[in-house]
Amino acid sequence: MKRPTLSHYRPDGSVQMVDVSGKAVTSRSASARARVKLSAAVLRGLGANPKGDALEVARLAGIMAAKKTAELIPLCHPLPLRRIEVEARIVRGEVRLTSTVETEAVTGVEMEALTAVAVAALTVYDMCKALDKSIEIREIVLLEKTGGKSGPFRRTARPATAR
Amino acid sequence: MKRPTLSHYRPDGSVQMVDVSGKAVTSRSASARARVKLSAAVLRGLGANPKGDALEVARLAGIMAAKKTAELIPLCHPLPLRRIEVEARIVRGEVRLTSTVETEAVTGVEMEALTAVAVAALTVYDMCKALDKSIEIREIVLLEKTGGKSGPFRRTARPATAR
Amino acid sequence: MKRPTLSHYRPDGSVQMVDVSGKAVTSRSASARARVKLSAAVLRGLGANPKGDALEVARLAGIMAAKKTAELIPLCHPLPLRRIEVEARIVRGEVRLTSTVETEAVTGVEMEALTAVAVAALTVYDMCKALDKSIEIREIVLLEKTGGKSGPFRRTARPATAR
Amino acid sequence: MKRPTLSHYRPDGSVQMVDVSGKAVTSRSASARARVKLSAAVLRGLGANPKGDALEVARLAGIMAAKKTAELIPLCHPLPLRRIEVEARIVRGEVRLTSTVETEAVTGVEMEALTAVAVAALTVYDMCKALDKSIEIREIVLLEKTGGKSGPFRRTARPATAR
Amino acid sequence: MKRPTLSHYRPDGSVQMVDVSGKAVTSRSASARARVKLSAAVLRGLGANPKGDALEVARLAGIMAAKKTAELIPLCHPLPLRRIEVEARIVRGEVRLTSTVETEAVTGVEMEALTAVAVAALTVYDMCKALDKSIEIREIVLLEKTGGKSGPFRRTARPATAR
Amino acid sequence: MKRPTLSHYRPDGSVQMVDVSGKAVTSRSASARARVKLSAAVLRGLGANPKGDALEVARLAGIMAAKKTAELIPLCHPLPLRRIEVEARIVRGEVRLTSTVETEAVTGVEMEALTAVAVAALTVYDMCKALDKSIEIREIVLLEKTGGKSGPFRRTARPATAR
Repeated sequence: MKRPTLSHYRPDGSVQMVDVSGKAVTSRSASARARVKLSAAVLRGLGANPKGDALEVARLAGIMAAKKTAELIPLCHPLPLRRIEVEARIVRGEVRLTSTVETEAVTGVEMEALTAVAVAALTVYDMCKALDKSIEIREIVLLEKTGGKSGPFRRTARPATAR
Repeated sequence: MKRPTLSHYRPDGSVQMVDVSGKAVTSRSASARARVKLSAAVLRGLGANPKGDALEVARLAGIMAAKKTAELIPLCHPLPLRRIEVEARIVRGEVRLTSTVETEAVTGVEMEALTAVAVAALTVYDMCKALDKSIEIREIVLLEKTGGKSGPFRRTARPATAR
Repeated sequence: MKRPTLSHYRPDGSVQMVDVSGKAVTSRSASARARVKLSAAVLRGLGANPKGDALEVARLAGIMAAKKTAELIPLCHPLPLRRIEVEARIVRGEVRLTSTVETEAVTGVEMEALTAVAVAALTVYDMCKALDKSIEIREIVLLEKTGGKSGPFRRTARPATAR
Repeated sequence: MKRPTLSHYRPDGSVQMVDVSGKAVTSRSASARARVKLSAAVLRGLGANPKGDALEVARLAGIMAAKKTAELIPLCHPLPLRRIEVEARIVRGEVRLTSTVETEAVTGVEMEALTAVAVAALTVYDMCKALDKSIEIREIVLLEKTGGKSGPFRRTARPATAR
Repeated sequence: MKRPTLSHYRPDGSVQMVDVSGKAVTSRSASARARVKLSAAVLRGLGANPKGDALEVARLAGIMAAKKTAELIPLCHPLPLRRIEVEARIVRGEVRLTSTVETEAVTGVEMEALTAVAVAALTVYDMCKALDKSIEIREIVLLEKTGGKSGPFRRTARPATAR
Repeated sequence: MKRPTLSHYRPDGSVQMVDVSGKAVTSRSASARARVKLSAAVLRGLGANPKGDALEVARLAGIMAAKKTAELIPLCHPLPLRRIEVEARIVRGEVRLTSTVETEAVTGVEMEALTAVAVAALTVYDMCKALDKSIEIREIVLLEKTGGKSGPFRRTARPATAR
C-alpha cells in the first residue's frame, strides 16, 4: 500500500532507477542548505585569513560536486545543469552553505543541490580539522524546489537555533 | 598567530595541500556518523520493504564514496584504503549511519570516514524523497580517529537526542 | 569498400568519434544480457544468504556503470539517460543479468546496456570469487535495440544452452 | 556454514568490503581473457584497415579501465598498479583479449585483470557495431593469479572451441 | 567597471558558474590547437614506429579528455557533445594537434576543444619522455568558435614560426 | 634500434604501460611550468578583483587535476601523491603557473606536475574568456625532476621572453 510511493522500488521490493522516459522536459530548480558549527577558535582562525579562502574552496568544491551527483548517488539520473550556485557565509558561529541548481530536464535537481552543500560542508571540515576535529555538520536540508509533476516544495521556516 | 595551525594555508594566506612528504607510513583509522531524521510515514515505507534495500543501497553508496574522497575534497590526499565499513541502523526514528575506514598511510582517513556517511545519508534522502522532501540530515560528525602525529581523537559522548 | 561502414574510422584509417551533429533527437532503447556460470557450491552459498545481496550489489553496480559508459568506451558519446534497469535472476545454474536503457538522444544506448550487464557480471564474480575463481562470464550480447536511423534490432532467439 | 567463505558478507548477511588491514603487502599478479566472436564480414572490415586500430583502441580502453576497477566494482579496494598489459589478437574468427596486471599490495588484482578484458571487449563491440549488432562477447575468465594467502590459481586448460 | 564582463565573478568578487538558464539551445562548435616541439631524435623515434601509435594514443586521450572537461575545469557546465575530433600531424619538427568539438547546447564548447588538445599534447609528452624530458608544449590556443550570443570568433592567422 | 628507448612501445610497435614491477620505491619529485599570455584588458580585469580569485581557482583546479593524471594520460601509472603545490603569479603580462609534486613510488611524477599546470592554465583561460578569446597558453614545460633510475633533470635556463 505504501511502497508504491517509494518510487525507487519495484513491486518485488528491489531497487531501481526511476523511469522518467515518459516525463516532459521542464525548468526545474532546487535549493539546499548545510550548517557547520565552528568553535570560537576556528572562527578566529578563519577570520585572520585575509582572503577568506576556506569558504571559497568550499564553494568551489560544492559546485564541482554537484556535477558529480549522478556518480555518487546510485539511482540518480545524469542531468545537464544550467546553473550551480553555492554561497558560504558565517552566521552566528556557523558556516551557512546554500546552493541553487537549475536544469531543463525530465527530473529534478534536489540531489544536486543537496550534494553541493554536503561536499562544501565536508570541505569546510577538511580545511579546519587541524584546529578542531569536533566540528559538526549540523544540518543538511532541502530548502525549496520548483518544477516537476510533484509541484513546488518550500521548507517551512523554523528558527535554525531552535533545532 | 593562529593561522599556522590551519595547515591548509600558506604564509600568504592562499590554500595548499598539506605536505606529507616527510611523514611516516603508519596504521590509521577513523569513524564517523551521520543521522537522518525520517517521518513516521517514511519509516513505515521502509519497514514495509521486505529486503530493507534503501539502507543497503545507502551503505554501498557510502563505501563507494569513501573511495572518491580525494576527488571530492579539493585538498585531500589520494590514499590506499584497507577497509571501509558502513553500518546503517534505524534508531528512534532516525537512520544512523556509521563508518570505519582504515589505511596504512602518511596521513589520516577522517575525510574518507566523513564522506562515506555523508553520501550514505544523501542516498537515504534520495531513496525516500518521493515520500517526504523535508527529511533532514541532522548531523555528520567524526566519532574517533587513531594514528598519526596528532594522536587519537574520540568524540565526547553527548546524548544525540539532546542536540 | 567495406571500411566506410565501420563508422568509427576516417578515410585514412584512423579512428574517430562518430559525428552525430546532424542527427535528430529521438527515443531510443537497448537491452543486453550477460550470463555468469556458477558452480553448485557457489549457488548454494548465494542461496544461503537471507538477503540475496550479491545480486542486488551486482544490479546496482550495473546501473552505476551504465552512467559511466562514455568514460569507459573511448569513442562513445556522453548521453542523458532516462531509464536504466538491470535484472538479476538465477536460471539453471547461471546468473542471468539483463539491462534496459532508454534515452532521448541523437545516438543509441547499446553500449550503455552492454556496459551495465558486463559490470554487473564482473561484480557477481567479485562477490563470489573467494569461493571459486573459475567462475565464467559466458556471454554478453545485445538483445534488442529500437530507434535511430538503422532501425530496430532484435537478437534471433537461440536456446542459450545450445551455445 | 558456507557463507563465511563468501568474504564480502558479514554475519548478518549484509555486504561489506573485505577487511585487508592485517594482510601483508606482497607481489601479486593476475591474467584474464575475453573472447569476442566476429562475423566474417566484420573480420574483413577489420582486416582492410591498414592500421588495425580497432584492436589498439580496445587495448588502450582495457588498460584505462583496469585503473578504474575500484570505481566500477563496489567492494573492490583501490590498489596501486605496477603493470597493466592487454593483448588483442585475431584467432579463428575471434578477437582474443588477454590481460596481465601486477601489484605490490595487500590484496589481489583479479578484478583489475577481468575489468581490463571486459572493457576491451566492449570496445571491440563498439568499434564494429555499425557492421553487425549481433557480435557476441563469448567468454570472460580468469586465467591465472599468483600471490596472496589463497595461493596460485591457474585455469584448467580446455580447448576454447569446445565450449 | 570592468569586472562585470568577467562573467565568472559575482558582484562581491567571488567566483561562480555562469548562469545559462535563460539561454537558448543552439548549435555551437569550437576548434583549438596545441603544438608540441620534439627534438630530431624523438622525431626519428616516432618515425621508426611502423604504426605511428604515439599520435593515435594522443588523439584518443584528447577525445576522452574532452568528455571530462566539466570535471577538470571547475566552473564549466556539463554539456552533451555531438562530435569530438582530434587530429595529430607532424609539421616542421612539431606535433600539431587540432580539435573540433560540436554541441547543441546553451553554452559553448571552447573549453572542451582546448582540453582535448591540451591532454593530447600531454600524452605526446608522456609517450616520448623516456627519450627527451625537455619536450615543450609550445602553444595551446582557440582557433575558432561558432554559435552563441557572443558570435563567431576566428583566431587571426599569424605564422606559427613567428611566435 | 631507436625504438627500445621509447619505453611505451613493445617490440611489435604497439603501445604499453611501462612495466615498473621490478623498480624500487624511492622519493621522487617533479616541477613544471605553464605560461598564459593575457592582454592588458584582461590583466586589468583580474587586478580589479579584490580577491584575485581567478588565480586561486586555477591553483585549485591544478591541484585537483594532478590527482586525475592517471585517468587522463592513458599509459600513466596511478600513484600515491604526498605533495601537490601549484603557484600562480602575474609576471610581465603573463600568468606563470608552477607546480611541484612529490611521491614515494616506483615511477616518477612528471606527468602529474605537467597536468597540474596544464589544467590550471586552461582554468585561467576559462575564467577570462568572456573578455578575450585569443588568450594563449604559451608554454608547458618540465622544470625539474629528482629521483628514479634516469637521475635528476633540470631544464636549462633560457630567458622566457626570448622564446
